[in-house]
Amino acid sequence: MNVITSEELMAMAEEKKFLAIREKLSQSNPIDIAQLFEEIPPERVAPLFRLLPKELASEVFVEMDPELQQKLIMCFSDFELHVLVDELYVDDTVDIIEEMPANVVKRILASADPAMRKDINEILKYPGDSAGSIMTTEYVTLKENMTVGEAFDRIRQVGPDSETIYTCYVTSRDRRLLGVVTVKELLLADKEMSVGDLMTENVIFAYTDEDREETANRIRDYGLMALPVTDRERRLVGIVTVDDALNVITEESEEDFSKMAGVTPTETPYIKTSVWTLWKARVPWLLLLMISATFTGAIISGFEHKLAACAVLIGFIPMLMDTGGNSGSQSSVSVIRALSLGDISIKNFFKVLFKEFRVGLLCGLTLAACNLLKMLLVDRLLFGGRDVSVHVMLTVSMTLCFTVIVAKMVGSMLPLLAKAMKLDPAVMAAPVISTLVDAISLLIYFGLASLLVLPQFS
Amino acid sequence: MNVITSEELMAMAEEKKFLAIREKLSQSNPIDIAQLFEEIPPERVAPLFRLLPKELASEVFVEMDPELQQKLIMCFSDFELHVLVDELYVDDTVDIIEEMPANVVKRILASADPAMRKDINEILKYPGDSAGSIMTTEYVTLKENMTVGEAFDRIRQVGPDSETIYTCYVTSRDRRLLGVVTVKELLLADKEMSVGDLMTENVIFAYTDEDREETANRIRDYGLMALPVTDRERRLVGIVTVDDALNVITEESEEDFSKMAGVTPTETPYIKTSVWTLWKARVPWLLLLMISATFTGAIISGFEHKLAACAVLIGFIPMLMDTGGNSGSQSSVSVIRALSLGDISIKNFFKVLFKEFRVGLLCGLTLAACNLLKMLLVDRLLFGGRDVSVHVMLTVSMTLCFTVIVAKMVGSMLPLLAKAMKLDPAVMAAPVISTLVDAISLLIYFGLASLLVLPQFS
Repeated sequence: MNVITSEELMAMAEEKKFLAIREKLSQSNPIDIAQLFEEIPPERVAPLFRLLPKELASEVFVEMDPELQQKLIMCFSDFELHVLVDELYVDDTVDIIEEMPANVVKRILASADPAMRKDINEILKYPGDSAGSIMTTEYVTLKENMTVGEAFDRIRQVGPDSETIYTCYVTSRDRRLLGVVTVKELLLADKEMSVGDLMTENVIFAYTDEDREETANRIRDYGLMALPVTDRERRLVGIVTVDDALNVITEESEEDFSKMAGVTPTETPYIKTSVWTLWKARVPWLLLLMISATFTGAIISGFEHKLAACAVLIGFIPMLMDTGGNSGSQSSVSVIRALSLGDISIKNFFKVLFKEFRVGLLCGLTLAACNLLKMLLVDRLLFGGRDVSVHVMLTVSMTLCFTVIVAKMVGSMLPLLAKAMKLDPAVMAAPVISTLVDAISLLIYFGLASLLVLPQFS
Repeated sequence: MNVITSEELMAMAEEKKFLAIREKLSQSNPIDIAQLFEEIPPERVAPLFRLLPKELASEVFVEMDPELQQKLIMCFSDFELHVLVDELYVDDTVDIIEEMPANVVKRILASADPAMRKDINEILKYPGDSAGSIMTTEYVTLKENMTVGEAFDRIRQVGPDSETIYTCYVTSRDRRLLGVVTVKELLLADKEMSVGDLMTENVIFAYTDEDREETANRIRDYGLMALPVTDRERRLVGIVTVDDALNVITEESEEDFSKMAGVTPTETPYIKTSVWTLWKARVPWLLLLMISATFTGAIISGFEHKLAACAVLIGFIPMLMDTGGNSGSQSSVSVIRALSLGDISIKNFFKVLFKEFRVGLLCGLTLAACNLLKMLLVDRLLFGGRDVSVHVMLTVSMTLCFTVIVAKMVGSMLPLLAKAMKLDPAVMAAPVISTLVDAISLLIYFGLASLLVLPQFS
């Protein structure tokens, strides 16, 4: 949907067709322009950026990579930076500041006017995972006794600097949130009606110190365009808009994907992430898991000589370990996502555990029965494996059943325990569960084998 | 944020305080009321539902579980159903219809007026994963030559039946999409200006037959409130609103979570899903993986007697298989998510493969070095394992390095190949990759062992 390619842009710049460039870019979407600028050499961006009308310039700036933003700020005069910052929304400015080195942050803050600087510092005070950190302070407030006509005057006045005008917040004199009214309601109402009559008093809101993921989930669950954020005294201090909620939800679920796969989350898209960064994000977990697999190895080593005596048992180890691992991760991923989406909480601990026990029992029995059949038909009849005695078949099948039950309970319990200890449940997915389940399944296997199979060899 | 609990509601109904109930519920949010109704016995919902004002009733109805919706429809007279359906948005009606049995669908369609019935049938024609299937047909269209004042008149007229009024679509006489204009722009503009002067002509849009996930990603990436959907002739046929995009993004990523964990996606939240449904969603994958682990078992069995002769090799099998599996899933999850988010496409095949090769090489070398050190210090010196010869140490470390490289390449390649074959990349995550990587790592291990370790035993 871009009206111009980066090659065309470069060629036009070469020929100094600046008016034509301004014309072309003014028709483009800010996100597409930011994309174009990413594709041309950074030292050539500044002159092109200066061609943009100031409102568009600020919209484009917000969408660029932090690296390019920083390079541009370096090129800007103090006056240019002031003009840019003046056009930015407070929450976007905060997002930019959080990615910049200290000297750049100082210049940005110095360029902001005092009121904006105060708002920026206010938002920066909130922890990064709180509702306060993702809110913006630019919104429309109305008073209860205003008429619809007066409300529109106010909207026209503060509208240009507000991130959304479509939901307006009705506040008391001491900034307490009394209700919300939408522009749709105002537009469809009689001009003489009062805002107080039109507003909805039962407002869905969030506290500044609430978790940002919960805040974003609330926006999704209630299908809102924006959610007001208040302090503990119910004084309105900001709003979170649906586009920011969408980004939070995407970021949080990508973080969960990474953690479950044993990767430290990175903020850059995969294709832009360097090989070194990928290595740094992945290798610690691989090392940790490799070291933890030493325990499993130690269990096998302790049983090594008995296994050597009854070699048929060795071949079933991978299947038992894999099935245990898979059963565990099925449960842990279900529980981790249910926690993330707010479907369950730590209060449901025993309900979840009992559910997983029953699912585990059903799955375990099914697998054990199928395995018994498979061993009988394939290992015994088809391959004529004489070593695969009835005792071996029973040992493997029983281990399978117990392992699945234990794996499902461990897999569901650990994320809940992590949540209860205020840790991130997703971290529990890969490393701890697989090691624990592997070890348990081997202990069950060797225990049963010692009882059922090995006596026949001595 | 509920103004009443389900117990209080039941008690009030018992005492026939219907006016008070209507009062209380009218102050509540529709989503909270739907939640309340889920908590009381279904046969007692209908009389309470009838107390709601008709607009609120339709908002509540949309938020209820399909089961409860169906039970309520059974209780409704034809007239009641007509009143309800009349208040519903077309896209919500389609969502409801998709969950209902044929006889209920017939009743709903019969209750809709002819224009709405036509729109419903239109949307139902699009495949479930297309942009067309998630759009709504209720939006505001303007003409180019309208003044701002006339535009507001039109908005006031069609507004009550439109899902969003904040983005208005400017169309030609033959319904071609010419531009968009927001209510914010209209409100801040002079009353005498024309819509044509104010509108943005470079519209971000989707085609009806585009993938719904791509459509939703576009709404997120461009930070839109609504996205117009056109046919291939650029004629406007519907819009997708941001709240629907949010639901699509959540649904699609939850589906990926499920598939990666080897679980068939279910639509109900975890806590509401029955043990039987969970069993049905999980057991087929466990069975498939168990059967596929037979191959790994067969590889080990083929090597069984040599392993029995050199038992020290057995203890390292779990560590090698685990590390291979983890390395593979790190890559596959990265690639699957990058595909979902639209960061990469099949065009990047070789770029991704080369990147994963380099990351694999780095990770493999790191792990091999650490493993060598660990075997030297722990297995040899600490535990005095005399069996752990230099040849064993080399075999294990070299296998580790090769396995990691192969796992990363297989893990990144298979989701891309699946995408190229129009299959779901996420399905490739668990079953195929782990089986393949397990088998390859064992073959490398036994191959190297045959060369380096076993000759010393004969």
